[in-house]
Amino acid sequence: MKVKDIGEQGLLRRLQKFCPAEIVGDDCAVMATNPNQSLAITTDMLVDGVHFSDRTTGPYYAGWRAAAANLSDLAAMGATPLAVTAALAVAADTAVEWVEEFYRGMTACLQEYHTPIVGGDVVRSPVVTVAITAFGQVECDRTISRSNARSGWAIVATGVHGASRAGLELLLNPEFGQNLTEVDRASLILAHQRPKPRLDVLAVVWEILDSAGEFSIAGMDSSDGLADAIIQICRASGVGAKVDRTQIPIPDIFSEIVSTEKALDWGLYGGEDFELVLFLPITSAQLLVEKIGNAAAIVGTATDSTDIWLTDSSGICPDAILKLDRGFQHF
Amino acid sequence: MKVKDIGEQGLLRRLQKFCPAEIVGDDCAVMATNPNQSLAITTDMLVDGVHFSDRTTGPYYAGWRAAAANLSDLAAMGATPLAVTAALAVAADTAVEWVEEFYRGMTACLQEYHTPIVGGDVVRSPVVTVAITAFGQVECDRTISRSNARSGWAIVATGVHGASRAGLELLLNPEFGQNLTEVDRASLILAHQRPKPRLDVLAVVWEILDSAGEFSIAGMDSSDGLADAIIQICRASGVGAKVDRTQIPIPDIFSEIVSTEKALDWGLYGGEDFELVLFLPITSAQLLVEKIGNAAAIVGTATDSTDIWLTDSSGICPDAILKLDRGFQHF
Repeated sequence: MKVKDIGEQGLLRRLQKFCPAEIVGDDCAVMATNPNQSLAITTDMLVDGVHFSDRTTGPYYAGWRAAAANLSDLAAMGATPLAVTAALAVAADTAVEWVEEFYRGMTACLQEYHTPIVGGDVVRSPVVTVAITAFGQVECDRTISRSNARSGWAIVATGVHGASRAGLELLLNPEFGQNLTEVDRASLILAHQRPKPRLDVLAVVWEILDSAGEFSIAGMDSSDGLADAIIQICRASGVGAKVDRTQIPIPDIFSEIVSTEKALDWGLYGGEDFELVLFLPITSAQLLVEKIGNAAAIVGTATDSTDIWLTDSSGICPDAILKLDRGFQHF
Repeated sequence: MKVKDIGEQGLLRRLQKFCPAEIVGDDCAVMATNPNQSLAITTDMLVDGVHFSDRTTGPYYAGWRAAAANLSDLAAMGATPLAVTAALAVAADTAVEWVEEFYRGMTACLQEYHTPIVGGDVVRSPVVTVAITAFGQVECDRTISRSNARSGWAIVATGVHGASRAGLELLLNPEFGQNLTEVDRASLILAHQRPKPRLDVLAVVWEILDSAGEFSIAGMDSSDGLADAIIQICRASGVGAKVDRTQIPIPDIFSEIVSTEKALDWGLYGGEDFELVLFLPITSAQLLVEKIGNAAAIVGTATDSTDIWLTDSSGICPDAILKLDRGFQHF
């Protein structure tokens, strides 16, 4: 049996047997290191030609994105970053400049969040590969898990979805978006190349939850798309959802460059926007959206069914079941 | 400029500019997480055909060795393991059984030290690649660094050196060691395939240092060879050393299978024995060797010169300067 016969999810299921069930399955592993604080840990591996490519993203932005993806996983758990390690496999004829630019990009992103690179490894390989592990600290009673959502809670997307996917399209396809202004074009490309992990959202979340007096929240990041995040949280929490397609925060400019269906597709399945998707009681959700501002939006509600419906409050489209299978599969 | 033009050390030096100078450069990064305890972090990347090969070591032992190497780095800092993460890149036609055997071997080693795999990543790549990050806890006043050695201290090797290299030779070269008994052959092969990180040594070290009343110790592990460890510690501490070639603990059986020169070469430069190399005051060193037993030995003394001499207390060989350049270079 080959890996391709069982796919990424099949392989992950088999490998999770080797891990403690209570720890794996969220954006980060969380381990209590003392009575009040836990260590949150996340790791990502990136392979040349699979996860980055000089065709769309030079080494500086490949490094930035790698750092941002890991910090986003920490944010999704409610953790403050402590440090990262970076292990790097390069070929003998890889340009030193490429490697240094990758580190420059990674460091530029990390410095915005005061996070040092504290270690690593450098080895030889025919394929340039990077593995980043990030650790953060989270107070034990402030860990944001996927499995804590309750029926009736509102679903918040902390910002625009689909912009990273549109930026990738601009990089891949010179025919696309020729009617865009330079500013709009640059902004979509930057959404792809230089995403910002939403660690800034955490302070707002704590403030709201503290004044509500209860830790009512579940969440994850939208690295694999908004639809994926909603579905994963619903499954982990044993709830369903109604998601209103008219409320999904997509870039205004989409109406000028893609069809309504494509815009929705990118907003739900585009991925790599690195926003947070948070489920919380409606009053807290409204406060959160107001305080974050920008494109943050309540996109739906958790229900006590197990189905996840895509609805349309404008009444134009019929309801549909939201599925995972537009998501990215590694094999 | 290509990576091969500056080599592994050259690339590492350039990349260390991106890391805080006070943290990098030892077996692990160590970060204080509260007033008494630090987090020790180490990461290794392993590439098919470079760091493991089905020719010498099937997936089970490749997994064991990967885990052992990381736990050995924790032991070298005085840290108790907390957890590891494992990121894995596999090809679509990699056998699922290969991947599961790798995890089985990794878990078998980790379980001996009560260490769970708490997270990971699985991605696609043309070249099977594994990145492991291990975390441990160390009391702030018990961190074993490379840079604390003092002139006059004794140099302890906690066990046999060269056995792993001999085991590799047996696996690579069917002509070699044909006069060995099955038991001796198996024991050398296991030294290569199933090395044991010396976390057991730490309890003995703490007991001795506590009764001595002072934290006088420096050290690292001998993953890159005994000579490398001695030289790295001397450089980091600004001391020299005299190493007595007759005191290096090599397997007794070497006298029957290799020349005296080859035996010394493997003992000094073989690598991957994953023992600890510890510098400490002579009284503590003698106690340590006695309590650990087996092949543990005092192999030399730190001096206030900066040269590192290989001496011969039997008077047969002339003194020579101990050099790094028999060590493994990745590029």
